[in-house]
Amino acid sequence: MDHRTDSTSAASSNGARTTTSSAAPRRGMPGDGRVPLAPHPDRLLPPEPERRAIARRLYEGVRDLPLISPHGHVDPRLLAEDRPFPDPASLLVTPDHYVTRLLHADGVGLPELGLRDQDGAEPAEPREVWRAFCSRWHLFLGTASRQWLEAELHEVLGVAVQPSADTADELFDELTARLRQPEFRPRALYESFGIAVLATTDDPADDLRHHRALAEDPSWSGRVVPTFRPDRYLDATAADWARALDDLAAASGIDTGDYAGLVGALEARREFFRARGATATDHSAPDARMAFLDPAEAAALFDRVRSGGATGDEAVLLSQQLLGEMARMSSEDGMVLALHTGSRRNHHPDTRRRFGPDTGHDIPVRAEFTRALQPMLERFGTHPRFRTVLFTLDETAFSRELAPLAGFYPAVYLGAPWWFLDAPRAMHRFRDAVTETAGFYRSAGFIDDTRGFCSIPARHDTARRVDAAHLAGLVAEHVLAEDDAAQVIRDLNDRQPRTAFRL
Amino acid sequence: MDHRTDSTSAASSNGARTTTSSAAPRRGMPGDGRVPLAPHPDRLLPPEPERRAIARRLYEGVRDLPLISPHGHVDPRLLAEDRPFPDPASLLVTPDHYVTRLLHADGVGLPELGLRDQDGAEPAEPREVWRAFCSRWHLFLGTASRQWLEAELHEVLGVAVQPSADTADELFDELTARLRQPEFRPRALYESFGIAVLATTDDPADDLRHHRALAEDPSWSGRVVPTFRPDRYLDATAADWARALDDLAAASGIDTGDYAGLVGALEARREFFRARGATATDHSAPDARMAFLDPAEAAALFDRVRSGGATGDEAVLLSQQLLGEMARMSSEDGMVLALHTGSRRNHHPDTRRRFGPDTGHDIPVRAEFTRALQPMLERFGTHPRFRTVLFTLDETAFSRELAPLAGFYPAVYLGAPWWFLDAPRAMHRFRDAVTETAGFYRSAGFIDDTRGFCSIPARHDTARRVDAAHLAGLVAEHVLAEDDAAQVIRDLNDRQPRTAFRL
Amino acid sequence: MDHRTDSTSAASSNGARTTTSSAAPRRGMPGDGRVPLAPHPDRLLPPEPERRAIARRLYEGVRDLPLISPHGHVDPRLLAEDRPFPDPASLLVTPDHYVTRLLHADGVGLPELGLRDQDGAEPAEPREVWRAFCSRWHLFLGTASRQWLEAELHEVLGVAVQPSADTADELFDELTARLRQPEFRPRALYESFGIAVLATTDDPADDLRHHRALAEDPSWSGRVVPTFRPDRYLDATAADWARALDDLAAASGIDTGDYAGLVGALEARREFFRARGATATDHSAPDARMAFLDPAEAAALFDRVRSGGATGDEAVLLSQQLLGEMARMSSEDGMVLALHTGSRRNHHPDTRRRFGPDTGHDIPVRAEFTRALQPMLERFGTHPRFRTVLFTLDETAFSRELAPLAGFYPAVYLGAPWWFLDAPRAMHRFRDAVTETAGFYRSAGFIDDTRGFCSIPARHDTARRVDAAHLAGLVAEHVLAEDDAAQVIRDLNDRQPRTAFRL
Repeated sequence: MDHRTDSTSAASSNGARTTTSSAAPRRGMPGDGRVPLAPHPDRLLPPEPERRAIARRLYEGVRDLPLISPHGHVDPRLLAEDRPFPDPASLLVTPDHYVTRLLHADGVGLPELGLRDQDGAEPAEPREVWRAFCSRWHLFLGTASRQWLEAELHEVLGVAVQPSADTADELFDELTARLRQPEFRPRALYESFGIAVLATTDDPADDLRHHRALAEDPSWSGRVVPTFRPDRYLDATAADWARALDDLAAASGIDTGDYAGLVGALEARREFFRARGATATDHSAPDARMAFLDPAEAAALFDRVRSGGATGDEAVLLSQQLLGEMARMSSEDGMVLALHTGSRRNHHPDTRRRFGPDTGHDIPVRAEFTRALQPMLERFGTHPRFRTVLFTLDETAFSRELAPLAGFYPAVYLGAPWWFLDAPRAMHRFRDAVTETAGFYRSAGFIDDTRGFCSIPARHDTARRVDAAHLAGLVAEHVLAEDDAAQVIRDLNDRQPRTAFRL
Repeated sequence: MDHRTDSTSAASSNGARTTTSSAAPRRGMPGDGRVPLAPHPDRLLPPEPERRAIARRLYEGVRDLPLISPHGHVDPRLLAEDRPFPDPASLLVTPDHYVTRLLHADGVGLPELGLRDQDGAEPAEPREVWRAFCSRWHLFLGTASRQWLEAELHEVLGVAVQPSADTADELFDELTARLRQPEFRPRALYESFGIAVLATTDDPADDLRHHRALAEDPSWSGRVVPTFRPDRYLDATAADWARALDDLAAASGIDTGDYAGLVGALEARREFFRARGATATDHSAPDARMAFLDPAEAAALFDRVRSGGATGDEAVLLSQQLLGEMARMSSEDGMVLALHTGSRRNHHPDTRRRFGPDTGHDIPVRAEFTRALQPMLERFGTHPRFRTVLFTLDETAFSRELAPLAGFYPAVYLGAPWWFLDAPRAMHRFRDAVTETAGFYRSAGFIDDTRGFCSIPARHDTARRVDAAHLAGLVAEHVLAEDDAAQVIRDLNDRQPRTAFRL
Repeated sequence: MDHRTDSTSAASSNGARTTTSSAAPRRGMPGDGRVPLAPHPDRLLPPEPERRAIARRLYEGVRDLPLISPHGHVDPRLLAEDRPFPDPASLLVTPDHYVTRLLHADGVGLPELGLRDQDGAEPAEPREVWRAFCSRWHLFLGTASRQWLEAELHEVLGVAVQPSADTADELFDELTARLRQPEFRPRALYESFGIAVLATTDDPADDLRHHRALAEDPSWSGRVVPTFRPDRYLDATAADWARALDDLAAASGIDTGDYAGLVGALEARREFFRARGATATDHSAPDARMAFLDPAEAAALFDRVRSGGATGDEAVLLSQQLLGEMARMSSEDGMVLALHTGSRRNHHPDTRRRFGPDTGHDIPVRAEFTRALQPMLERFGTHPRFRTVLFTLDETAFSRELAPLAGFYPAVYLGAPWWFLDAPRAMHRFRDAVTETAGFYRSAGFIDDTRGFCSIPARHDTARRVDAAHLAGLVAEHVLAEDDAAQVIRDLNDRQPRTAFRL
């Protein structure tokens, strides 16, 4: 049922006068389900003629630059195996918790979106999932996901009509057929996207076989590097931490039964990752605190936690100590420490239990960096080999803490607006909040952070448009000269991410 | 004395050079006190010609839609009795703490504004109050109150000249006479405002006689529904809590001397309110935390607090437990739980003691929702009958917590920017902060929250203009198609508040 | 080495395609180092023609108004002695931690910027410092410092070419010569800047000899007043507090060995400052909490802390008690209490140890005012002689706490956006955040807070441009009439700072 019909009848049943908007033609109504999908060439650029002209020139200067993707969640197997994507629902809906969460909020159960339920409900067929998505396309109006999906559908997948209840089946068939064509297989898309380097996110116990396969494949010329993501091994509060340590011991061949062993195993795996091209480690932690205990104290703490005899606070302290070790190792091996903090993961336990993690209910909390990072920055903030990129889900930290920190410490780079903030207006707010304090040259550039391989060009393109729009505003207000702005936007898309992530 | 004369002489006495602004004509000076009051038809719409044209069309599409008012503080007696308003000061100044607080900040004592002082100072006569207000009209420049007052004065009350020291008496006489005319009595205004439904805010012990009188009056065709606001009974930390329980017992005929009795009495009163048309409960709490103790624990806690033998923390816990009961009851009876948290009430105790509550010194504090609401949402966040609308005075929660919560939980709707945030720029910030994460369809639409009956159309009109302006910006940047925007703004003014509040 | 060359070669070495931006001419490249420096006359004004026209008129109305500087860090000796500035590095780079911190973040050591290192590294020669600065001029793009520096260089110092590696030496020579000319000595500049009153920041033990010298110099007609800044004496947690009390005893001739003595000494020094023209006290504190113990309790607390037998919490409480005494004294002697809170000073201990305080690593933390200030405002918020100006580094407090407080309490004025927030976009956010709640007439106007004497006119000019731009937006949206806006901007630059600071 179309939601707008719903709305009108609800209004009438309550005796309200109804007025028809006659000024603008309406579309997306039943019977008018074929609305063209054609993203505007000037989308996200400022509408005033002078500013738009400047923004166009700035955007043109970077539109076709190679994509540098220092952080994301593309599975390297995708490229190693290069199998076709099966259908649009499995490509665009089911695996993308940005998309499923808004459908879920509208009352659609996750099994109806193709997720497997531990309690036994069968996941819907892809065609049904696609129908559920297309008929609720209006839910995404104004969201970042809508921007990306429109660009993916139109520019990557060649779709010319908006999703709707009326077009769902036709689009499903059209896309399923198209995805079988050779030019829509992952490697062909990688080439066509113009990716210069793609960093994946990998478990330290991973054997990186797909990275090796790509590196050893003479027919493949792309650059795909792993990222060391040791959350499982550092989070001593988690129920499966002991098992994680066993996995790490198996992967490294080092006994992780004491603190020195765990540290040694992590060091060994970092070295293994570096040999496969990794330049960074990536960390999700509740907050940014790190501890720097002396070795004997750390070893005793480890023993207490490992034996199950520790308090919750001690387990938290051990986790902070292990994150501190990562900073110390980075200062030695030069791997960039990317820090993503501030998400309360799995807010709805029943959904977690039935459908697993990353199902749309990780909710941000307030962030604090000034005090949390002080012990680490006291040690490594001016260390010549150490480098960290800081991300936040709490945008109040941008002007208050992150820009001032990055404006002093040579080791600190400002991560791009991330996750819920990875959207045009939030990107503008980020630049507004940090630039006056830290300039442009403490920024690590854009990361796409995506699980949707086909969204990579759309996400980078959005960021480039927003930067062009933002810089055009400064040029029009005579804060920047246009040629300085042209250099800045190039640097934000090339020099800055390469420098910040040592790519 | 005119404040600007003041300023100039102060400047001179300190030896500063004084420069006269010659570019712009000056007004509001002594001797030039008759400045036209004529709100611009395009006010609050974007000034750029293209955007303004779009915004005008969007605004035209909703300008005359019926007003849905799911939350406010209009006294139902006003409509039941339909007596004329006595004079402009009693209508527009004395009862409106938005207005009195800015006059107070300028050094005007509350008795001079018509408030009764427990210490005995006589309240000023309405004409004196009106003069104090008119001569300080410049204090309101740029505030939301000024927007509303200009629209009320001009569009509702037919005033054509700006308030000033020079026009105060003439306006007082003109308005006092006009308010006696039949078309300015409350029911006539209600009709002319185009109100579809008006929710009041009522004490659970209230017998709702005015609602009944309206419902049983064959000459009245409006829809006025009560809202269940049980703060007095849930706040176990308050000095008058025991007396409140007695009042509730009297109203419900149920002994509130134990926990089960209190819960039963609240349930009975909710049922009574529903029978009179109520669809929602409304709650002011210091923060959003709720507790879910087991029944025996809750009963014992109640007994300790009731007997005076509990700690302050226990009283807080009991209050949270009672708010949790409200959520549980909502999941059973379907009343929408509207949550207004984050105000430190009665910041200045002496003003509270002398002049009562709601006298302009409730000051917001930081808000937290992610952790506070987790226990409740774990239980009811996906419950099919449960629905909650979340309001905040801390706008940092919009992007960080509220939009992500509403973007996953079907039970959660985003309340409109409220109280200090109920103003054009804050509304823009709200949309900027939430839309990219939650779209438009998790928004509960506008609430006017007013104590000023005549401000209702002005407040809704302001919200519609701001939404039109905001959407026009997105259309001009090609983020939304104009016909999608036209549908969105209609939905925000009709479907969304009806759905969120079950009206 | 030019950073852009660096960037391009980094890109190439990683195999990325390189694209040359041909649309915009490039400058700042090696071999093209002579780029004109000519700040645009309409800089910071809105680019849309209608808005710009309004903004120009508003700006014209205040551009040449005398400068009122109620808070800053100019050394009064500068004017008393009137010696020439030695060279551009010593004037513009070395003493300005806004400038040195961004260079430090880019990897330049503080000795290379002319700072003296306790560990013995020799500070670089001024010419070398100037070269380091000029060759990194791009780091400041988009920052407030760049705006100020461009205006200082061009409008105060007559420079016509952008700093760059290529122009560094020529600019150094040109500026060094110019600074020796009589019209570039401090008093001549003071006259040419159009300063009406300049408040310095002074230690209570200071004998104010330079203020006296100026006051007694018949050839000097400026107005330079001291400000009472007693941080050293109020911070009972500091290692040098005991020594500070001795200094105060020496300056006041009052024994500070007990609480009454300390209070009496502070009162005596306030009186001394008032006799030299001071109208305000200024306070940097970690947060805004104040305590109001009874005298016996305070005396006992003092004794415990002074004797070294107190806990850390007790020392904090004593500090809060002493700040509370400042509020009490202000209510008696009428000195305005300016409160600057929320900075975590000296974040990097090694830099503090080697180079001293104010070296770029004071980092803001979250601020809270509603609860912190309640005890003080309960006592003095409506007191007729008490006045306070509140500053914050946490902009979330603007709409949430500060505007509501200033919108009720006659004693509370809103301080200008300060330090990291003292920049065009942050100023716009400040006005957006506070005006709808508190109007314009609770604002204390602009403070320049500068350590750079020559930046005073640039900073005030930036603030005037931003206010003009902001008000023009409101006029164009028909929220304000233009003549009201013209009056508001005059008041913000004259009446408001004079009233708030009693100047």
